[in-house]
Amino acid sequence: MNPADKSKTAFVAVDWGTSSFRAWLMASDGTELAESRGSEGMLHCATSGFAPVLRAHLAKLGAPADTPVLICGMAGARQGWVEAPYLHTPTRLDALHAGAIRVDTDGDVRILPGLAQARPDQPDVMRGEETQLLGVTEPDFTGVVCIPGTHSKWIRIDNGAVAEFATYMTGELFAVVSEHSILKHAVEPAAAEDNTAFASGLATALSSPTSLTSALFRLRAAQLLGYEQRPGGAARLSGLLIGSEIADARARFGVNVPLRLIAAGRLGGLYREALAASGFNASECDAEQASRRGLIKAARQIWGARF
Amino acid sequence: MNPADKSKTAFVAVDWGTSSFRAWLMASDGTELAESRGSEGMLHCATSGFAPVLRAHLAKLGAPADTPVLICGMAGARQGWVEAPYLHTPTRLDALHAGAIRVDTDGDVRILPGLAQARPDQPDVMRGEETQLLGVTEPDFTGVVCIPGTHSKWIRIDNGAVAEFATYMTGELFAVVSEHSILKHAVEPAAAEDNTAFASGLATALSSPTSLTSALFRLRAAQLLGYEQRPGGAARLSGLLIGSEIADARARFGVNVPLRLIAAGRLGGLYREALAASGFNASECDAEQASRRGLIKAARQIWGARF
Repeated sequence: MNPADKSKTAFVAVDWGTSSFRAWLMASDGTELAESRGSEGMLHCATSGFAPVLRAHLAKLGAPADTPVLICGMAGARQGWVEAPYLHTPTRLDALHAGAIRVDTDGDVRILPGLAQARPDQPDVMRGEETQLLGVTEPDFTGVVCIPGTHSKWIRIDNGAVAEFATYMTGELFAVVSEHSILKHAVEPAAAEDNTAFASGLATALSSPTSLTSALFRLRAAQLLGYEQRPGGAARLSGLLIGSEIADARARFGVNVPLRLIAAGRLGGLYREALAASGFNASECDAEQASRRGLIKAARQIWGARF
Repeated sequence: MNPADKSKTAFVAVDWGTSSFRAWLMASDGTELAESRGSEGMLHCATSGFAPVLRAHLAKLGAPADTPVLICGMAGARQGWVEAPYLHTPTRLDALHAGAIRVDTDGDVRILPGLAQARPDQPDVMRGEETQLLGVTEPDFTGVVCIPGTHSKWIRIDNGAVAEFATYMTGELFAVVSEHSILKHAVEPAAAEDNTAFASGLATALSSPTSLTSALFRLRAAQLLGYEQRPGGAARLSGLLIGSEIADARARFGVNVPLRLIAAGRLGGLYREALAASGFNASECDAEQASRRGLIKAARQIWGARF
């Protein structure tokens, strides 16, 4: 990348998660001039401080002095850098920028808010995904977005506004069950992909959506009785948990809606397969691109004159 | 207890679980002459050996030399003392004794078998609970038995024979989720009982039986948004998981069956409440008494002449 390009710099986009940091130097035309990544997520910075981490990454990016910075994610949580209070659903995605708070630090640094579903019967929260939603939806989008992960999100969007959403602890349950329960004997860490075992776990969950906690035990029993083998255990567990999520989301949101899947890598592939097997017709967007695009849209609204 | 009583000794009954050991010196009329308990379960003995543990407890009990010993539970697992191969369902409970294996050690020591449901679509196993079932059912019993615990069991019995059963990872999920997931921030270890929070979690699970993995996240979100407080988190989590188990078992076995609950202490109380709220009409048996009675019934079949 030609250093001269950096004269076109408009702002720095930052996705600051629980355990990861990603920053991009962005040009005013939306192109990416440089990238810097690290593991200094919120948990790390809660003890070591946020400002020094940001300064170091701005230096790595070669950001010109006084380049404004727009951040999304857990840096805006109560236990983050500065709390950016949640916007409450229903809320238009193109109103996100209005909830950004400015950090009392060198330069113009702002953090986008998360979203809260402040309903006693369905309380829910997100931080970071709202920016991805802004990135992948048109101002009049109506449909559902699925964002798989540690805490998978399903979001119903009505004419550009987040109407409601639900979080599933899919990825985190996979981790804690395979590391800390009796299933550690039935799941190999870093097992190879096993499409047959994944599809079988998925089919079990879709056909018996109330039986998750007994299906988990059967995964162990099937190996004890010789019907299944340990190398397929991780894929089967993944199929059970992803299938449990999709079965519930399908009943809640319906399959006859435009569905966008925001995902990447191996997890994206598993959800693509699972959604198709569940009757969804999903279009797919890359997760990092979604974050960057959302940050660009919000930055244009905040610092319009620079673009 | 008068030591002279021990002349009436018929046998020693042992419930040897994963992490606990309980033995009773039993008279021929079924009364309990002495008790000895310890934490030397299968996991402990796998490294230190089983025979010395049994010898030490027999000495504590003051068992006369050559008293026969009948054991149920994980001591008969593959990773236990000596494997007592599973009997396969369907199987009559009064045939359990025929599957007992004799241990190659001093005296007459036998281990009862566990049960396996060797069906590729519903593989399942139990060790220890089959003896409780024998203890609490008449030879012609028809109905369902619920045994709550780390791995809760629901068993359908048809005219004295185990027809089918299902295991739910309820207790283990409570432990791993409250200790190792984000819910550790929402659940206080050793929280006081909270009947309202338990009932609320239970109602959520019963009314939305496919939503467990999102209900778990909402438990955290509700506290972040101020709708619920951390002291009620453990009871609510317990209600969600027990409710998830009962909702599935209710759909599978139906509520219009004679139901026996084998339980004890605080967990027994929670299940009593949850089963009543779910429309079941359950009769209750004490868990330890169920084990002892099952061991007595099997011992009479094995060593009939002594009784």
